Amino acid sequence: MRVLILGGDGYLGWPTAMDMAAKGHEVCVMDNYMRRNIARETCSEALMPNPNLHDRCDLFHALTGKRIQVVIGDCADYRQLSKVFIEFQPETVIHYAEQPSAPYSMRGFNEAQLTLNNNLGATFNVLWAVMEHAPECHIVKLGTMGEYGTPNIDIEEGWLEIEHNGRKDKFLFPRQAGSLYHTTKVLDTDLIWFYVRTHNLRVTDLMQGPVYGLYTKESEADDRLLPNFHYDDIFGTVVNRFLVQAVAGVPLTVYGKGGQTRGYLNLKDTLQCVNLAMENPVKPGELRILNQFTEQFTVNQLAEKVQHVGNIMGLDVQVNNIDNPRKEMEEHYYNANHSGLLDLGLKPHYMTDEVVAQMLESVMRYKNGIDRTKIEPRVRWERLK
Amino acid sequence: MRVLILGGDGYLGWPTAMDMAAKGHEVCVMDNYMRRNIARETCSEALMPNPNLHDRCDLFHALTGKRIQVVIGDCADYRQLSKVFIEFQPETVIHYAEQPSAPYSMRGFNEAQLTLNNNLGATFNVLWAVMEHAPECHIVKLGTMGEYGTPNIDIEEGWLEIEHNGRKDKFLFPRQAGSLYHTTKVLDTDLIWFYVRTHNLRVTDLMQGPVYGLYTKESEADDRLLPNFHYDDIFGTVVNRFLVQAVAGVPLTVYGKGGQTRGYLNLKDTLQCVNLAMENPVKPGELRILNQFTEQFTVNQLAEKVQHVGNIMGLDVQVNNIDNPRKEMEEHYYNANHSGLLDLGLKPHYMTDEVVAQMLESVMRYKNGIDRTKIEPRVRWERLK
Repeated sequence: MRVLILGGDGYLGWPTAMDMAAKGHEVCVMDNYMRRNIARETCSEALMPNPNLHDRCDLFHALTGKRIQVVIGDCADYRQLSKVFIEFQPETVIHYAEQPSAPYSMRGFNEAQLTLNNNLGATFNVLWAVMEHAPECHIVKLGTMGEYGTPNIDIEEGWLEIEHNGRKDKFLFPRQAGSLYHTTKVLDTDLIWFYVRTHNLRVTDLMQGPVYGLYTKESEADDRLLPNFHYDDIFGTVVNRFLVQAVAGVPLTVYGKGGQTRGYLNLKDTLQCVNLAMENPVKPGELRILNQFTEQFTVNQLAEKVQHVGNIMGLDVQVNNIDNPRKEMEEHYYNANHSGLLDLGLKPHYMTDEVVAQMLESVMRYKNGIDRTKIEPRVRWERLK
Repeated sequence: MRVLILGGDGYLGWPTAMDMAAKGHEVCVMDNYMRRNIARETCSEALMPNPNLHDRCDLFHALTGKRIQVVIGDCADYRQLSKVFIEFQPETVIHYAEQPSAPYSMRGFNEAQLTLNNNLGATFNVLWAVMEHAPECHIVKLGTMGEYGTPNIDIEEGWLEIEHNGRKDKFLFPRQAGSLYHTTKVLDTDLIWFYVRTHNLRVTDLMQGPVYGLYTKESEADDRLLPNFHYDDIFGTVVNRFLVQAVAGVPLTVYGKGGQTRGYLNLKDTLQCVNLAMENPVKPGELRILNQFTEQFTVNQLAEKVQHVGNIMGLDVQVNNIDNPRKEMEEHYYNANHSGLLDLGLKPHYMTDEVVAQMLESVMRYKNGIDRTKIEPRVRWERLK
């Protein structure tokens, strides 16, 4: 299949590209290096060095004999995106091309504007490029579980039947996100659903939880094929920050009470999920929404896991609750349905002690590169008040 | 009070400006003439001539002794909008500054992109200008009843308590709009609610139905103070199209079966509603949503009204059902709560035969200017298929 991966330089995009190419698909990646540029501007570079896309593709080719086409360009520029669609004629487009940092989106006017314009603009352009140049193409879009926020009711997969005053209808599950970044994904969903029902597009929207993990089958051959591993407050997930703090001998910084619950998944399972979505496309006019995670943890549970495994490995891991820089509920109900991908065949890789130990070992090999000043929160949600 | 009116050249913006100035408020209007430019480009000019904003303000001053400040500029340009906020220091900002045509937003890529960028960009900038330059300012935003679409359940005022699997929470009422223009207003609402709850802004979002009517107290003095009256398929409402068709001796074009039900209101009541919202501001962190209409009609009922009154006036009014250029339900449940503004003191002006007759008389005085070719649908929702 011809697969176009937008945001192909990213933490998910690059492993997806290698995985798809290894499986024999014809793969083209497009990226404008926005994340690398923002990371440099905000002193938030990744822990391991990541060669540029052309160099990684060359290395991947040398190791596997498989080619990945590279386009350095901006999906939020319709002319550039159209050119790729016309020339490559994708049968599936996987859309990861968004500014992915919640703290960055809350940093100030310019960062917020960039996040809104880039994310909505890229999604709008993908919808139009499909409508104009590849109307049969299946769009696999990465949303986020963060779109739902933390409602006091069970979270369903994308949709909810509502009964009100004795009458019923089915709607998008209500969404109320915790950062501007997450809100742009809510807007994406609204926009996608409008064009799907009006112009009979085919879209799978994957509401993904935070992803952890480094190695996938292809990167085991050479560390230069690893995806970017961020551990700073801007791009680092809570899991990555805890792993690096444990290795650096810094107390794990739990934001507030630490009762924040989210659904997590292993990077290997992201690859499975995206493949399952691609191999089981939807019909024209259908927006399928799947909740993409395998386990729920509180932040405190994650801290305990890293502390437990770290201490076994001889690290002296402490935990420290700090003022929460975000505006979010720190204790709340959370119960999210995620059966759709299991029904399609997902075989989860859970966050076992062994998995945590492997991640800690990887980080330990790069211990000298750790910059502790990057880990403390540098962005506060309520700074403007 | 210092009132900043964004989109002050518009059908609602201009009468609001005169009304507020007449009531003794300090009024500043800002507009970039986008609607006039689009109307010219699409051969959709208004029926009556409308002098530019500077000339209308001069005329208004000559007649009343009241001044209205004019800024010709683009709210979607943050530098321009910030300058106005810093200099004028508004206590209330009334945000009408959006590309308001559903058919225009469905015409093609460029029109869709302009609508998305302008409407989201203007709303984003208004939120930030308030946060940065006037944090106490009450934002009165014009949304649309079209955000809700035509659900099979009763429409509440902005919010809905949902019970699901034995648990309850309150959410924004589900929104699912029928055009890209209406969808941009859904995105506006999501964006506004995010910033309201995160940065304690004060916002009233008025979900308005289609407005009809020409004269308000101030424009009765001189026809050059009338708001723009569009009767074409791009900017004309169904009421205006029917009035002009009746006068021009063309059958009233009902789209499809004509069972499409919406809530309508008189232009005079828009002024009342905006005043009531302004005089009763909300607290910081509150997003108040009010459904702004006074009566529900089907398209067939509107056609019958215009036919009935037109025939009494000696016009030979015919009705013709034509292929629906839109993608919408033509027969559906519709029951929308609209008690909030009545509770605040709204005294409705209903669409009586007398009101319809007055509108027909106004149009008859400009009969020679009618261009029949503008009225037939020129934009089809499914053109891309």
